[in-house]
Amino acid sequence: MQNLYSKLIELSESMQYPFHMPGHKRNIDSTPLKGAFRCDITEIDDFDNLHDEEGIILSAEERANRIYGAYKTYFCVNGSTAGVLAAVSASVKKGGTILAARGSHKSFYHAAFLRDLQIKYLPDKSDDKLKIPGTYTQYDVEKLLDDSIECVFITSPTYEGKCSDIAGIAEACHKKGIPLIVDAAHGAHFGFGKKFDKDGEYNSVPKSAINLGADIVIHSVHKTLPAMTQTALVHISGMDGLADEVKKYLRIFQTSSPSYVLMSSIDLCMQEMEENGEEFIEALLDYRNRISAKTKKLKNLAIPGSKIIDDPAKLVIYDTSGTMTGKQIYGILREEYGLQLEMAGDKIALAILSGWDTSEGIDRLIEAVLKIDEKIQKTKINTDTSADKTSGDIVSSEYPKVIMRLSEAWDKSSEDILLKDAEGKIAGDFINLYPPGIPLIVPGEEFSEKLIKEIVGYLNEDLNVQGVVSEPGGTGYRVRIIK
Amino acid sequence: MQNLYSKLIELSESMQYPFHMPGHKRNIDSTPLKGAFRCDITEIDDFDNLHDEEGIILSAEERANRIYGAYKTYFCVNGSTAGVLAAVSASVKKGGTILAARGSHKSFYHAAFLRDLQIKYLPDKSDDKLKIPGTYTQYDVEKLLDDSIECVFITSPTYEGKCSDIAGIAEACHKKGIPLIVDAAHGAHFGFGKKFDKDGEYNSVPKSAINLGADIVIHSVHKTLPAMTQTALVHISGMDGLADEVKKYLRIFQTSSPSYVLMSSIDLCMQEMEENGEEFIEALLDYRNRISAKTKKLKNLAIPGSKIIDDPAKLVIYDTSGTMTGKQIYGILREEYGLQLEMAGDKIALAILSGWDTSEGIDRLIEAVLKIDEKIQKTKINTDTSADKTSGDIVSSEYPKVIMRLSEAWDKSSEDILLKDAEGKIAGDFINLYPPGIPLIVPGEEFSEKLIKEIVGYLNEDLNVQGVVSEPGGTGYRVRIIK
Repeated sequence: MQNLYSKLIELSESMQYPFHMPGHKRNIDSTPLKGAFRCDITEIDDFDNLHDEEGIILSAEERANRIYGAYKTYFCVNGSTAGVLAAVSASVKKGGTILAARGSHKSFYHAAFLRDLQIKYLPDKSDDKLKIPGTYTQYDVEKLLDDSIECVFITSPTYEGKCSDIAGIAEACHKKGIPLIVDAAHGAHFGFGKKFDKDGEYNSVPKSAINLGADIVIHSVHKTLPAMTQTALVHISGMDGLADEVKKYLRIFQTSSPSYVLMSSIDLCMQEMEENGEEFIEALLDYRNRISAKTKKLKNLAIPGSKIIDDPAKLVIYDTSGTMTGKQIYGILREEYGLQLEMAGDKIALAILSGWDTSEGIDRLIEAVLKIDEKIQKTKINTDTSADKTSGDIVSSEYPKVIMRLSEAWDKSSEDILLKDAEGKIAGDFINLYPPGIPLIVPGEEFSEKLIKEIVGYLNEDLNVQGVVSEPGGTGYRVRIIK
Repeated sequence: MQNLYSKLIELSESMQYPFHMPGHKRNIDSTPLKGAFRCDITEIDDFDNLHDEEGIILSAEERANRIYGAYKTYFCVNGSTAGVLAAVSASVKKGGTILAARGSHKSFYHAAFLRDLQIKYLPDKSDDKLKIPGTYTQYDVEKLLDDSIECVFITSPTYEGKCSDIAGIAEACHKKGIPLIVDAAHGAHFGFGKKFDKDGEYNSVPKSAINLGADIVIHSVHKTLPAMTQTALVHISGMDGLADEVKKYLRIFQTSSPSYVLMSSIDLCMQEMEENGEEFIEALLDYRNRISAKTKKLKNLAIPGSKIIDDPAKLVIYDTSGTMTGKQIYGILREEYGLQLEMAGDKIALAILSGWDTSEGIDRLIEAVLKIDEKIQKTKINTDTSADKTSGDIVSSEYPKVIMRLSEAWDKSSEDILLKDAEGKIAGDFINLYPPGIPLIVPGEEFSEKLIKEIVGYLNEDLNVQGVVSEPGGTGYRVRIIK
């Protein structure tokens, strides 16, 4: 049997170019962090303890804190997942209420489950054309801030690089005296580098949520920065005792044997950004602007610019002619051009850029996009119009009715039934459309006829719907409901 | 500022020899898993998904499962911590009751906190002479198994290498129709290799808890096997639906961006054990038996053999003459001989051995122990008798009174007061003596005069008591109590 390692080596030696996480793009042969085993130790003398740091790990966290300028910064070796679990658990008392967007990461829902939280949802503001989650204004939040709400949870930037009005939302929260948590897992590179005087559409990266007034900000440092996968930072600003509460939960949600390889990769990454952050951002902007400049004349494909996608690290590609789905674009780039993107949606294909990309890789992407665009032009007449078959118009603006709390529902015994028979039944598990990963239904919510139609629509398009299993023999689909 | 990485390199180039975790002892320069970044990817095509495995990660888990022979085996990238959190959460319904030893790992208490569990405790069976946690028989468990108990949680082997009667305890649990969870974080090497016909005290390793009838077994694969730190396995045997419940919670407690470097290191480790497990165990036994043979004539120091320490990978060193504490032995080995042990207790110093040790390292340890033994002999007369000052006789056989449940108490607002004023107050946080890490008090329990004396005793010996802070100015110690 081929082992995982040899398969990874095979990939690293193949022509596949990574336009996906992590930010280092496997392009770090120069770094001394080879021979990981040499650095893999446990908490011995002089090496501090992540859970009670007072020595070299504390110094490393303080360096990161210095860079981002929060009150306190903690390292995570269990990803942003641990950061979100800890942030939400620390900010809302058990059984309390939190306001969040429906498209929040599953770790948000897991925290709500573990702490018996009631979730109030912000309205769906998804972009219907691109089928990507939307962003929120101060007004969106203020409208819903009643006295039951103890905390607000916002994802900004989104996976696709759109930013909410964090400054305004923070103001709304602080008027009410409640904390704002920002899941900025994809925004660790924000706030670096001055505005560059560039001839191109992007001349800076957005401001960091920390500087915009958020109380807790979670950063993955492997997504757009060059630390190793599974590493993250949690920043806490202000609010007495909040940092200690977050720390309490990080001790709960993170291994008591944290990897020194992962921790040192965070530290190396922070050192790199402290010393060369400017150059990193400048390289990113140059890459992004080069792509914009060279793809101006696209006839069918489109790459939305700074007016739609705030983050230059996120490259959204879609077909305005409706000839190709995001999955088809993604597939051609991978199969025919050896370009591995991050993800494919119903409408879009998403590439992640970073300062560690190579000029050669960027040019390969540009060339590929131009060629695909021409090809669409030629074959436009008798084309596979699968894109027209999308459920583009079926977007549920209101959410399923909540019958019982997540923590209660997900703990009940459940059973599988046919999706077509689920109307009026209570969900026993999540059903998610990946990407973008917004739950179509959450345990404790009721299946409606409309929702069942929507799910069937996605399944017919062969999109990745998690939480639905195909009936053996393909006679139908089964979903989990509460007994 | 020196960064964490350069400090790790400095160590790897120093004379310090690791008699501590992880099992690979930084002795893997031959392994191809250098250049970790080259293998650090995200969930792209063909690389499966740890949380919904069906490809190469599933195959890797199946290989591990084949080796240990459970019904189902899952990889953990958040350590045995994630395994214990998931196992306990999956085995006891919310608010239910679980039977466990007081010395269980903190992740056990964290699971009890998150799931509102009531904990019933097995009696303290600590070894008074060595001050290490004890083990349990079928009778110890049967005596306490009332109908309220839904699950039993046992740590075997202990940190120091002592094993409980898992077969008997499993029988007791199954008679009651409840699952047995075994925290075998330190026992991943158990069950490998046949009985060797060796002239020495150890001629095999103990049987694996899986083969002894445990329902869930958690193995760290970095402690005594050569995977990278923070990796573990959870094995589930029998009990309908239990594996699915464990999986549900592993999705909650583990990052959605698991490290491929960590996962591939588990896989490499399993491949190594599948192909060379016999040799690995034989080398371990040879090392251990060589130490026994060459240290027979010790006059003051002692290294307990197979009658007391079941696991040949654990080397316990203590001073029968009472001249030196475990900390002093540990300190001399590190400072004067460049031998870094795993931990030091009140009485003992603990070294971890593995098949990846070098013959040279083993000989250095033997020589050092013999020299220290002579030195004690010479200086015995006017010796520092700090060891006599130990609280050896103060061992609380019964536990503090439980006033409220952990989940309730640890959620309440708390404050710091002087330890001397804590009598009759309810603990707001854990107080642990490290090692061995048995909680002296758990949130929700009441401080007694006896306990306060015990804690002061440990503090006076300068042992590592977590959860107590020194009063600024050293006028006393403060502990956390519920307001």
